[in-house]
Amino acid sequence: MSEQTTVSIHTQPRTMENITRQVADFVAKSEKPSGVVHVFVQHTSCSLIITENADPDVRRDLETLAQRWAPDGDRAYRHDTEGDDDMAAHARSVLTSTSITVPFAQGRLLLGTWQGIYLWEHRTQRHMRSVVVTVL
Amino acid sequence: MSEQTTVSIHTQPRTMENITRQVADFVAKSEKPSGVVHVFVQHTSCSLIITENADPDVRRDLETLAQRWAPDGDRAYRHDTEGDDDMAAHARSVLTSTSITVPFAQGRLLLGTWQGIYLWEHRTQRHMRSVVVTVL
Amino acid sequence: MSEQTTVSIHTQPRTMENITRQVADFVAKSEKPSGVVHVFVQHTSCSLIITENADPDVRRDLETLAQRWAPDGDRAYRHDTEGDDDMAAHARSVLTSTSITVPFAQGRLLLGTWQGIYLWEHRTQRHMRSVVVTVL
Repeated sequence: MSEQTTVSIHTQPRTMENITRQVADFVAKSEKPSGVVHVFVQHTSCSLIITENADPDVRRDLETLAQRWAPDGDRAYRHDTEGDDDMAAHARSVLTSTSITVPFAQGRLLLGTWQGIYLWEHRTQRHMRSVVVTVL
Repeated sequence: MSEQTTVSIHTQPRTMENITRQVADFVAKSEKPSGVVHVFVQHTSCSLIITENADPDVRRDLETLAQRWAPDGDRAYRHDTEGDDDMAAHARSVLTSTSITVPFAQGRLLLGTWQGIYLWEHRTQRHMRSVVVTVL
Repeated sequence: MSEQTTVSIHTQPRTMENITRQVADFVAKSEKPSGVVHVFVQHTSCSLIITENADPDVRRDLETLAQRWAPDGDRAYRHDTEGDDDMAAHARSVLTSTSITVPFAQGRLLLGTWQGIYLWEHRTQRHMRSVVVTVL
């Protein structure tokens, strides 16, 4: 049986939350010496990425680019039920990822020095997001 | 030993097929109480995504955006052996994903209410696609 | 316990290295009859993709498109510590993937005929990259 938990994350509009510690803590508590941890968001308008953890400008620049990849309120969109950021958020989710996976050994994540795990809120409002973490 | 199966999916041109039920059924039949299911397409011109399962306009808008991310018949392409959609399809595959993973517990997928698993055909013709499902 | 190894890959600027053989060899040597192999780069300026393995023009065209998705030296970037390709490399990493997963059976990767696993160097200089391979 896999070890599994669900974590709730409060997000800020169009902001990335660093969830590395939550994931690392769950892995450390698991009984598996090595393997892969799987992290999954139960939503289609936010996503998970692994990116540079040192300079906050990296996250800001990613946000800038994402707004080009899927512009808010584009005239071509048919889906705009929840506003100008609705379809853009779904597209940004698809371009990045609903899940990420990280190997671990001896209870520690095998992340590179500059890698952090982030939950990226693609909506322009704050939300409470559910993240399922499974140790494999 | 992991439980594994291969499923054949008939696709329509530039259309997304909802394969959530096939994946959920295989997980339900498996003997693992909890874990992660891995879904993989054995092709480089279609891909797997998890996206909004309620409004079909979301999938249409994603198709609209994908045609911007990787335009058909772009003059910069060198690879056009199979037509204007050939290189675009490879690019769309790389921008999305060859595999998706979903956690499960008690034999049920831990998808959010609005999440569906889709096989996205990036070619402009119908195809028969092979999908490998593995329960971990 | 999962079987795990770390491989060092020498990259060339903005070039994709085919690492399919290294991954396949590790799976072949593992004791698991079937499952999924997980491949992970410990960096935020290169990434892993699965794409067409026959025509090198596909990889060149992907490189052409990536330079549009995240232009080098864009005036909107704040993060440029390591040069014009610095932020672009992080963005290209996020648009593609830090990890890929491939199912296997009887010790063989279940890749389609035209699929290869590539490490894509997004920096404009050569690097030595660490790749963690875990058999699940």
